[in-house]
Amino acid sequence: MAKFPEAITNLVDRIATLPGVGKKTAERYAFAILGWNEDARKELAEQCNTLSTKISTCETCGCYTEPNRCSACTDATRDPQTLLVVAHPKDIYALSALHTFKGHFHVLGGLLSPLDGIDPEHINLKGLISRVHDQNVSELILALDATIEGDATSLFIKETLTNTGVNVTRFAHGLPIGSSLEYVDEHTLSQAFSARNHF
Amino acid sequence: MAKFPEAITNLVDRIATLPGVGKKTAERYAFAILGWNEDARKELAEQCNTLSTKISTCETCGCYTEPNRCSACTDATRDPQTLLVVAHPKDIYALSALHTFKGHFHVLGGLLSPLDGIDPEHINLKGLISRVHDQNVSELILALDATIEGDATSLFIKETLTNTGVNVTRFAHGLPIGSSLEYVDEHTLSQAFSARNHF
Repeated sequence: MAKFPEAITNLVDRIATLPGVGKKTAERYAFAILGWNEDARKELAEQCNTLSTKISTCETCGCYTEPNRCSACTDATRDPQTLLVVAHPKDIYALSALHTFKGHFHVLGGLLSPLDGIDPEHINLKGLISRVHDQNVSELILALDATIEGDATSLFIKETLTNTGVNVTRFAHGLPIGSSLEYVDEHTLSQAFSARNHF
Repeated sequence: MAKFPEAITNLVDRIATLPGVGKKTAERYAFAILGWNEDARKELAEQCNTLSTKISTCETCGCYTEPNRCSACTDATRDPQTLLVVAHPKDIYALSALHTFKGHFHVLGGLLSPLDGIDPEHINLKGLISRVHDQNVSELILALDATIEGDATSLFIKETLTNTGVNVTRFAHGLPIGSSLEYVDEHTLSQAFSARNHF
């Protein structure tokens, strides 16, 4: 009984490729799936099989979408002159809580990281520049990760659009709401101090 | 963009039924699966679909097995007179590190829990008693959870086998190896104290 039957081992290996899932967790999930009834397993299988036919990527903004063009791009109540830029399609959903935002989205598909070989031509910057011109964008809001890669990408986009008259803004950096100073890291504290404002 | 496309929502709901997986984690996994290539998704689907044909439950011991009878039950080098009792099939794999154990296994399929309506007839106690007689078992090792349910089940089995001459033992309770006293809960400390021994 030193190892699992092959079918379980294969399932564990597959599951262990999910983000943040180690071997122990993958085993736990595999045994849970084994404990599901036949219908539940068939449902998961069907969902995996049909994902690529049911979900496509919007050619305009790069979001995941069911039809060929996504609900944000075809929504006439949204202002095409305000464009919010994110790195990954799933970031859009994280921002769905922003009910006040009524502009369009643009997915870069990654962040600049020259050390990892991700240069400007590897992310959708060309599409962004085209849209800025085509949609006559007045404000470009950068909602990228507060990391070195996110900062580098933000800066690159800002410099690319210099002298175009587009107002390039980015999400504020500082103390997360609900945080205690005691637990906030020094980089965030330093940024919060530099960017202090009247209220 | 307030919610995901339906295919993603359904996948998230399915994944969220895994143990310890909340909505946020399920979303993370679903987007990772969406990011897999088509082959990887088909592989997971195939694995889920064929699990019930490739894995069955051994009629004798209750372990998961590929053929009809499991490797432990058919292994002639194992001693049928020593029987190790666990609650769930996956516990067997947790015990696979016990290279010194060369007996047979028995899976109860649960633990007694009258408050949850799990009485002796709901777990495989009848099969256990039959095997004890049929295999002329000399030692029955109870490797059940160190919980109220595990203790109740251990006690019930011990009492059922009183006067049969079977040596019923159970896994020692005490300090886990590598633990600091500071972090050990009071019940464990109390048990470790009561069961202190010469060394």
